[in-house]
Amino acid sequence: MPDPVVTLTTDFGEASPYVAAMKGVLLSINPAVRILDLSHRIPPQDIRHAAFFLAAALPEFPPCAIHVVVVDPGVGSERALLYVELDGCRLLAPDNGCWTELARRASAPPRVIRLANARYWRPTISATFHGRDILAPSAGHLSLGVDPSALGPEVVEWVRLDLPGMSVQPNGWSGEVVFVDSFGNLLTNLPGKLLVETSARLFVGDEEVTRRVRTYAEAEPGAIVALQSSTEMVEIAVVQGNAAARLRASVGTPVYLQRG
Amino acid sequence: MPDPVVTLTTDFGEASPYVAAMKGVLLSINPAVRILDLSHRIPPQDIRHAAFFLAAALPEFPPCAIHVVVVDPGVGSERALLYVELDGCRLLAPDNGCWTELARRASAPPRVIRLANARYWRPTISATFHGRDILAPSAGHLSLGVDPSALGPEVVEWVRLDLPGMSVQPNGWSGEVVFVDSFGNLLTNLPGKLLVETSARLFVGDEEVTRRVRTYAEAEPGAIVALQSSTEMVEIAVVQGNAAARLRASVGTPVYLQRG
Amino acid sequence: MPDPVVTLTTDFGEASPYVAAMKGVLLSINPAVRILDLSHRIPPQDIRHAAFFLAAALPEFPPCAIHVVVVDPGVGSERALLYVELDGCRLLAPDNGCWTELARRASAPPRVIRLANARYWRPTISATFHGRDILAPSAGHLSLGVDPSALGPEVVEWVRLDLPGMSVQPNGWSGEVVFVDSFGNLLTNLPGKLLVETSARLFVGDEEVTRRVRTYAEAEPGAIVALQSSTEMVEIAVVQGNAAARLRASVGTPVYLQRG
Repeated sequence: MPDPVVTLTTDFGEASPYVAAMKGVLLSINPAVRILDLSHRIPPQDIRHAAFFLAAALPEFPPCAIHVVVVDPGVGSERALLYVELDGCRLLAPDNGCWTELARRASAPPRVIRLANARYWRPTISATFHGRDILAPSAGHLSLGVDPSALGPEVVEWVRLDLPGMSVQPNGWSGEVVFVDSFGNLLTNLPGKLLVETSARLFVGDEEVTRRVRTYAEAEPGAIVALQSSTEMVEIAVVQGNAAARLRASVGTPVYLQRG
Repeated sequence: MPDPVVTLTTDFGEASPYVAAMKGVLLSINPAVRILDLSHRIPPQDIRHAAFFLAAALPEFPPCAIHVVVVDPGVGSERALLYVELDGCRLLAPDNGCWTELARRASAPPRVIRLANARYWRPTISATFHGRDILAPSAGHLSLGVDPSALGPEVVEWVRLDLPGMSVQPNGWSGEVVFVDSFGNLLTNLPGKLLVETSARLFVGDEEVTRRVRTYAEAEPGAIVALQSSTEMVEIAVVQGNAAARLRASVGTPVYLQRG
Repeated sequence: MPDPVVTLTTDFGEASPYVAAMKGVLLSINPAVRILDLSHRIPPQDIRHAAFFLAAALPEFPPCAIHVVVVDPGVGSERALLYVELDGCRLLAPDNGCWTELARRASAPPRVIRLANARYWRPTISATFHGRDILAPSAGHLSLGVDPSALGPEVVEWVRLDLPGMSVQPNGWSGEVVFVDSFGNLLTNLPGKLLVETSARLFVGDEEVTRRVRTYAEAEPGAIVALQSSTEMVEIAVVQGNAAARLRASVGTPVYLQRG
């Protein structure tokens, strides 16, 4: 059997020693663990961004991976820390809703355990770094084969993130930009199939996007195009350019599909 | 035998979920694969930068590594995706020339296969993310021992990148800055031995660089120096400073060695 | 026994091929090595930052890890390259003091070896990249089980970094900001227990910080608070905000605890 995999997703950035400290803790508990960085560039304390990130990334992983997520503005408060299983995905995260977008798309209800057994924690618990002190050690023990039920009691209540959904309007569909990638492409919360199945007009803020393509390469460099994203949502791009800059759009910019 | 290694080089940045998605796909196909990040900071769609990066990095790797390169402005167009073997280096990349600088320096012609066998791809292929849907799964299967010839037919034509070469002039050698590293050091396409074997005068743009050293530490902080880079090319540096900022130079800035 | 782990900490940034080249060298020597990135964002040539980083991160690791540190403004000069063992931590680094803060906190004196045996180096040694040519290959051989004593002679002298210490004043304790993390939190060199055990007034530059908390979540968003950091030092934070920006503070900003 291959060595277990633990992935890390945080808002720590790569410059600080916090990520490195978590890696050390993981290796101390399970010297055979394979550690994989997913991203340390979640914007600081941006749970909504984390939710989008996890929903796009984690479903690609096999169940053997254990995902540790540390975006934790509530560290040190009474917020719980959770172990979650859903659709064959296993993750450890603060109870702030960062995984509930993933759950919304899952085919079965999650199994959720509240981390309560300090036996699987670091001996000393700081007030500000539960990623190192609780989440990483718990993941390390899970990777050694500890049964999740040993980590704490099952719970049936948790924080649900109220992500902006798209809404059906009398004359179309209303949504918004939910993610801007490093190319400046705008990912929205409108289903991509609407672009294919309807002839609705697309607006980003006040600007109409008239060009529809299947892929970037179908239009000339500089063209503003709408297409179905790799996650099957409506995406707005500038071919070999930056749509966020060109359209002055960012997360939260309204997007509207108006029935023809 | 050690577990196989797959490396990733992309222009995705670390903030997006695209890199994470590729890691998930790789692990889903081969749970034992060791994944290594080379860089996700290739400037967006900058094939030339990728070519320089790969030529500097890949020759250091042993043949057991499989390199996945995703800098792919032509995604979704008719451009092919390739598997390439050269000088014991194995890589998967779009057919956009990003590996041809590496080939130019190789001792034997490459073996090139066009990825055509959808059996080794993701079940659903998006129009915009072939790194996740074709390259990563093909690399995963290769890492399991699939014979490269199963991936598709051998081809003898591919895109060659027309990288700016140095040129021999009546009075010297003319080249340009091809890479600026994170210290601001200017890497050029002029062979470093010219610094050692000739007494030619060196100009970066309009500015003459008179100081030659073997290593940074030979001059005082702040000095502008020319030296042989770790890749054996002419390099211009400011000791404990930033030559790109100081000389207002960037990729493409002309560099000239004038015979004395 | 699990495959050996080699970690990398550099000031190369993620965009350059230097980190990738070191990974290739490591894998060439030991195809089974597990490579772990700690950070490539040490500010260029900032030994002091590296010292703080290493002191915060390395003690979390088990002795099986070998740490390679490349922050090397003196590359190519007569500065030595060292192998160091202290408190079960093994690292390879230039002799510039980057590990001496770690040593100051260690429970026993270090064992230090000067890398001198070229048999464990790359065949060709550049003048500017000893991370690739000497440190990485030496680490690769160590990971194969080479005895450290084969790398060179033991030495008893090395560069000690003169890190700014806190000082006890007639009316309190004087220190400074030694690290700013990606949240903008200010980490100082004043022991955190002073916050708990005394009622001293805290000043950052000219500004008094009156609010003391155990954790960020105890105050409302936007509040400026002082607390004990996860490394048990005095930390100043803005809840869900950026203290460095708000207080216009950076590394070196004086911090003072004035006895009540």
